[in-house]
Amino acid sequence: MSRHLHLNAFVMDVGHHEAAWRLPESDPGANLDVEHFVRIAQLAEAGTLDSIFFADGPVLRGDPRFRPVERLDPTLLLAAIATRTEHIGLIATASTSYTEPYEIARRFASLDHISGGRAGWNIVTTAGDDAARNFGRDGQALHHERYERAEEFVEVALKLWDSWQDDAQLADKDAGVYADGDRIRAIEHEGAFFRVAGPLNVSRTPQGRPVLVQAGSSEDGRAFAARHAEAVFTAQRSLAEGQAFYTDLKARTRAAGRHPDAIKILPGIVPVLGATEAEARALERELDELIVPAYGLKQLSSFFGVDLSGAALDGPLPEVPAESEIEGTKSRATLVAELARRESLTVRELIGKLGGGRGHRTFAGTPEQVADTIEEWFRAGAADGFNVMPAVLPSGLERFVEHVVPILRRRGLFRHEYTGRTLREHYGLARPAHRQLEVIA
Amino acid sequence: MSRHLHLNAFVMDVGHHEAAWRLPESDPGANLDVEHFVRIAQLAEAGTLDSIFFADGPVLRGDPRFRPVERLDPTLLLAAIATRTEHIGLIATASTSYTEPYEIARRFASLDHISGGRAGWNIVTTAGDDAARNFGRDGQALHHERYERAEEFVEVALKLWDSWQDDAQLADKDAGVYADGDRIRAIEHEGAFFRVAGPLNVSRTPQGRPVLVQAGSSEDGRAFAARHAEAVFTAQRSLAEGQAFYTDLKARTRAAGRHPDAIKILPGIVPVLGATEAEARALERELDELIVPAYGLKQLSSFFGVDLSGAALDGPLPEVPAESEIEGTKSRATLVAELARRESLTVRELIGKLGGGRGHRTFAGTPEQVADTIEEWFRAGAADGFNVMPAVLPSGLERFVEHVVPILRRRGLFRHEYTGRTLREHYGLARPAHRQLEVIA
Repeated sequence: MSRHLHLNAFVMDVGHHEAAWRLPESDPGANLDVEHFVRIAQLAEAGTLDSIFFADGPVLRGDPRFRPVERLDPTLLLAAIATRTEHIGLIATASTSYTEPYEIARRFASLDHISGGRAGWNIVTTAGDDAARNFGRDGQALHHERYERAEEFVEVALKLWDSWQDDAQLADKDAGVYADGDRIRAIEHEGAFFRVAGPLNVSRTPQGRPVLVQAGSSEDGRAFAARHAEAVFTAQRSLAEGQAFYTDLKARTRAAGRHPDAIKILPGIVPVLGATEAEARALERELDELIVPAYGLKQLSSFFGVDLSGAALDGPLPEVPAESEIEGTKSRATLVAELARRESLTVRELIGKLGGGRGHRTFAGTPEQVADTIEEWFRAGAADGFNVMPAVLPSGLERFVEHVVPILRRRGLFRHEYTGRTLREHYGLARPAHRQLEVIA
Repeated sequence: MSRHLHLNAFVMDVGHHEAAWRLPESDPGANLDVEHFVRIAQLAEAGTLDSIFFADGPVLRGDPRFRPVERLDPTLLLAAIATRTEHIGLIATASTSYTEPYEIARRFASLDHISGGRAGWNIVTTAGDDAARNFGRDGQALHHERYERAEEFVEVALKLWDSWQDDAQLADKDAGVYADGDRIRAIEHEGAFFRVAGPLNVSRTPQGRPVLVQAGSSEDGRAFAARHAEAVFTAQRSLAEGQAFYTDLKARTRAAGRHPDAIKILPGIVPVLGATEAEARALERELDELIVPAYGLKQLSSFFGVDLSGAALDGPLPEVPAESEIEGTKSRATLVAELARRESLTVRELIGKLGGGRGHRTFAGTPEQVADTIEEWFRAGAADGFNVMPAVLPSGLERFVEHVVPILRRRGLFRHEYTGRTLREHYGLARPAHRQLEVIA
């Protein structure tokens, strides 16, 4: 079987560009409108994409003065989308730092049942003191401590998802026997962070368990991904960096005892499409000019965890902390600082570069050019596919589906129709076998 | 304006009767099938009912050998149902003992936005050591401690729902101003159980906040309901008991400084409908005979928190603890013990009585008879409406909507069509005014 691209649509209100809501075409209230997201999902499905994805955090992020910041619970949005679509995979972020594993295991198992096997969980540890302060803490736990908790959290979730065997239900009406009690087991987990008895109140799911996704590229994040992730979203700005990351993570996955194909690496790309390159660049410029500078400075400050609100817009990026000193989103901060240094950007220019995709790679061009760069990264061992982050939604996704997808199909890189029904089938991932638990209820 | 009945459909897998899944018409796997619940919701909407409701707990409840016990997350089910219906109110249970207020406030605010103002939250403290053991504890907190936590939990949720003013969004594209920062406030809550900074990442909802529902009838439960509940689900077996409860709770609500009409009292009724009374009784008998006795004994044991598995089926109910000694669902245990004593029931007969509705009032009869008892309770000051708990689903709800609802309409007791769009409008509840928070972000 030849290797095929995987494409995920990363959905965020009216687009990833910070100023997308200010375009004439945009409905600034769309992020509270479930039908907006249903339309986007149906569009992604019309393009036979693998999946859609919502980022998330239990906190008000961003400055509401400068852009829409309301965020509906993505698991509820995806449940609604599930019954309005048939094939598209449905991935939501949920935090391991501020929730309980029983709750999250159950919620994603429910989504997998509701969608007939299309659920994915993007596992995050949630950086930031602001989120911690919504949950009784003064500030976030240290980076490595958050990952220790995440490790045990996933271990508990895996046990809960296997607390029912696939064939536990007998449903024998005549005998009055619904399930075989021996095929449903308590987990009796006792660890440093969690004690959870189980079993789950949701049976084993169509996919065995939801697809596990991860999006941190720090040292801790890569180690975690190598052990657990089946898909990885990552920000890589150059082909060389993309290749290095890809090679490293595949090697780590092999070292963790897993087949390198069991992890799909999907760098982010913000495609800004035009019929001509000039038209694409004009749209990019139009968007960048709509960014309010005060907002950009606030965003930069949050990347580095320092106050940059007084920075001169036309000067260079001031000194910022090194990755080792950052307890937030480590890898993204490093990436942004390196970008500014390498391209000798002023603060204003850096804000423009980040406005499109918060550090992800923006690519303005024609559909052919976008297809070319996707193919180049895919063939050069930098990507198994892409996390497509339209600058403007729904129009950016519509253009991608209408104009880029057909090119990728013609080149034999992308499916013409769905051949599977589950997200695992789209991603070419095996359904995990049930692991018998040792502890008996 | 004349007083009108309110009708909620309490939805539970293939019906409230423990043995409903064994009937030839029932699909035992229906409780994992979102389309089963969508059909039920659409049926309730065709009958212009006020709302549908899912009970819930973060634990595997009931014995899987004897009946379907899987329970999908009800907030996800309701989100899916929201985009497939237009009017029906959507109420889910969520526990205050095993979740965080930021999480729950956000989830129900999301459901209220997704449904255009149809969300309700049934606030429970979750009885039982089994649930506690899924969340790092050896057993449940004491009854009154659970209610103390619930009290503060609701206080935090109310603050979060008011952390955005209704008119916070300006959406001024030209000026680049999305929201007025002064109309979004942190809550900086600090209490015995919770410290929560806020603001919420979801803006004020169509209903101002979800409708608050409560279903505990103990002393603590009634006091809590009088302060917060806008609808109350309760188990009352006789008209006299229903009247006493109704009078008491309305008086407590007034004493708490609220108008008695601001709380709607909905006793449960399990209607078992037949074209004739004999036909209804035959269906009731058919269902009761399908209950596995071992399961009934297990249910009885869990009501009282003692092991009754060895009780003689044809003897009287053994000695059970008094309400004051029970830390679980206090009021239901008392009700069951009194029922057994008053009617001199054997254990086997008690199991039959409980099998239909776990202590709620089962009423087998013709549509006229069911309408008569509903009208009697409504006019006699025992109910503002009913929590309708069909023994078998969807057929029991279908019969209720086809045959009972038209009688109630002809008698001028129930709406012929929806006149409002939100759950508050259906229940005749005012949209709460925004309360300005004192603490400024």
